[in-house]
Amino acid sequence: MARGRGDLKARAQAAPAGSAFAAEVVTVGNEILSGRTVDTNFAHLARLLEAAGARVLHHESVADVPDEIAAAIQSAMSRVPLVVVTGGLGPTPDDVTRKGVSQALARPLSLDADILENLRARWRGRGGRDPMPANNELQAMVPRGATIVPNPVGSAPGLQIQHEASTLFVLPGVPMEMEAMAEQTIAPWIRARAARSVTYFTLRTHGIWESVLAEKLHDLASALPGYAVAYLPGGGGVDVRVRLPLGDPAGLDELRERARRVLLERIGAYAFGEDDESLESVVGKWLVARGYHLAIAESCTGGLLAGRITDVPGSSAYFDRGVVCYSNAAKVALAGVPASLIEEHGAVSEPVARALASGVAKVSGTEVGIGVTGIAGPTGGTPDKPVGTVHVACFAPEGEWHRHLRLTGSRGLIRDRSVTAALDLVRRLLAGLPEPVR
Amino acid sequence: MARGRGDLKARAQAAPAGSAFAAEVVTVGNEILSGRTVDTNFAHLARLLEAAGARVLHHESVADVPDEIAAAIQSAMSRVPLVVVTGGLGPTPDDVTRKGVSQALARPLSLDADILENLRARWRGRGGRDPMPANNELQAMVPRGATIVPNPVGSAPGLQIQHEASTLFVLPGVPMEMEAMAEQTIAPWIRARAARSVTYFTLRTHGIWESVLAEKLHDLASALPGYAVAYLPGGGGVDVRVRLPLGDPAGLDELRERARRVLLERIGAYAFGEDDESLESVVGKWLVARGYHLAIAESCTGGLLAGRITDVPGSSAYFDRGVVCYSNAAKVALAGVPASLIEEHGAVSEPVARALASGVAKVSGTEVGIGVTGIAGPTGGTPDKPVGTVHVACFAPEGEWHRHLRLTGSRGLIRDRSVTAALDLVRRLLAGLPEPVR
Repeated sequence: MARGRGDLKARAQAAPAGSAFAAEVVTVGNEILSGRTVDTNFAHLARLLEAAGARVLHHESVADVPDEIAAAIQSAMSRVPLVVVTGGLGPTPDDVTRKGVSQALARPLSLDADILENLRARWRGRGGRDPMPANNELQAMVPRGATIVPNPVGSAPGLQIQHEASTLFVLPGVPMEMEAMAEQTIAPWIRARAARSVTYFTLRTHGIWESVLAEKLHDLASALPGYAVAYLPGGGGVDVRVRLPLGDPAGLDELRERARRVLLERIGAYAFGEDDESLESVVGKWLVARGYHLAIAESCTGGLLAGRITDVPGSSAYFDRGVVCYSNAAKVALAGVPASLIEEHGAVSEPVARALASGVAKVSGTEVGIGVTGIAGPTGGTPDKPVGTVHVACFAPEGEWHRHLRLTGSRGLIRDRSVTAALDLVRRLLAGLPEPVR
Repeated sequence: MARGRGDLKARAQAAPAGSAFAAEVVTVGNEILSGRTVDTNFAHLARLLEAAGARVLHHESVADVPDEIAAAIQSAMSRVPLVVVTGGLGPTPDDVTRKGVSQALARPLSLDADILENLRARWRGRGGRDPMPANNELQAMVPRGATIVPNPVGSAPGLQIQHEASTLFVLPGVPMEMEAMAEQTIAPWIRARAARSVTYFTLRTHGIWESVLAEKLHDLASALPGYAVAYLPGGGGVDVRVRLPLGDPAGLDELRERARRVLLERIGAYAFGEDDESLESVVGKWLVARGYHLAIAESCTGGLLAGRITDVPGSSAYFDRGVVCYSNAAKVALAGVPASLIEEHGAVSEPVARALASGVAKVSGTEVGIGVTGIAGPTGGTPDKPVGTVHVACFAPEGEWHRHLRLTGSRGLIRDRSVTAALDLVRRLLAGLPEPVR
């Protein structure tokens, strides 16, 4: 029963005029299959392909074995007009993607003199001693009929090969190189061919379960005919993403506005942003809008809250300082927390969180302060204050808020969720929304 | 030419006695294929399977389409004895994995009364209003003959199904749930069946190119017969991982020691750690060994350096405080940098980086201080100090070091690499290694 595969091919070929260009991706590398490396490349690539107007229907990861690389490329090329392979183009003996491509297309490998000269020039330019290691020369072996995809940031060039009805792009697995090459070569290639890009509207939520969202939106098919909805884990909650109808005579702006209206009406209370907005960028917007500056005093999150805030380009306009006060002495010295308060309530407590928020704002001369204190584990918990006990507090002209979090999970997860909760708390306070009750 | 696939089956079946159990993974979800979500689940799962004694030979990601899910499951089950499917078990209408499984195995779905009662109890326990949304009931539909994989941290139960020669596990896509269930159910299942786990020795390096590593290790096949080497992108550089020979009469400790000896002899100058050690955990070890405490003053890395340091459980024993001083006033107030120094050299300069490192140590009363200042972009660069100009400095009883970094890439990449460079600088200083020259 190869029904599914036939259907996939059918889906790719029967795509209506004006819909996205069908693509598949093959990732090569034992390190991916062993889980040693997280395949962030694929997500970057898929987003880039989609933004240019293609749609990824299938993705396979295969081992560094030429036969398996060849088989995956052949299957993909039999189904869709665009196949992208990443990984295995490096200079070491386990980089066998060139062999796999050569085998899949039955085109022998030969040495490309231009690439070789380029590799040597690059090697010398980076201060490499002569002669260049023989391993690097392998990178100049290409299948017959391939053209070169320039690599603006690394040594391994990519390949582009037209074969029967499909086009194959082969890129290195190094994220920075792969991204730059896909952006410069594949994206324009797709844009020149795709009839129209797929367009989405996303409403990002925090603090509501996926099943409750789905219930509140159960009549979406009739409220937004032609739209398709998906629920995705987002940065800090669930993203509700709707695909705008293709071929609708209304303009994209009007189609987006329809979706926005319907979604906000039903779930607006939980929405913090749209599309690529993050909690930290929305917090930044509110700070700018109110003309406020921000200071942070954090303990268990260890700098990650400041790290998220400063991830936003231009955050220096409103972010004054952060202090990571692990020791009690640092809490006293950097955020003006009274030592007696720590003694009486313990460092992990509501009064200390509130004192961190107001204290760091006063010490820094900023309008807004955030305080975080808690136990991220795996050790340090007590029956009274188990691992996962976190207090976040926010101080602003609009008020002084506090939340007591009872989190579970790994150290990393507890730290992440504490950061998200703190960002959402300050967002709600600045936006004039009601204080969260739990 | 289905040669590759046949070979994959052959590889799985012809595995020598004592080698790892062959497995494949299928990830379900449009959000993965669109690149909206990074598939971190797969890496976690693969590591867990490998640690238990299985080896992942192939991984596919498919859309939320029952036919495609069914086809991927069928192919995988025809090749290997263990197939794990993740994702698409949730309560919303786009969760169709149950349908795909039912179709792949030709076993109809029916309502499981125990699961339903369990879902209802959980819903009430979490404060959900009666009645539970009908969507949630979908989670109680299971294929005939399936047994339940308990979910200790969420509502969606997993499934285990024996079908012909293969065993299929189906888990939810929520990372915390997937991990907990795989750990509790699949890992022991594998350990009971796998003849022997695959074991690796990894030496982690920083500051050396992959091609140069490969050249230095070109004779590894003769120096370490029976070992297999791979070069993997690691946290801060390239990891050199060797697979220990299976079936060798020497014990694992001796096999590891042989690998360690050979690798350290050739590339020891670039190695910062082994196996799961990270730069930040090694820095922590040195601080403990020397009896030192650490304070950090960072600007462009915005808290991420403190975040990495405090990612290590128990770091509160040596980490006193971090200050994120974005404004010049904060640099003066928190790290005692003379205002005149900033005026004369600019905030992004060697003297200010050195003053941040020594100043924050003096203010905090710690033996060791780290300072980072730079321009992460995308704006803020000048012809003199382009985006990517970063100065890191380290102050310790062993000396005062500084490095001028000239980085390229996105804001995120520049921040990440600055953190790594700072960690490596303090590691080398504390370990008594020579100062890096560039």
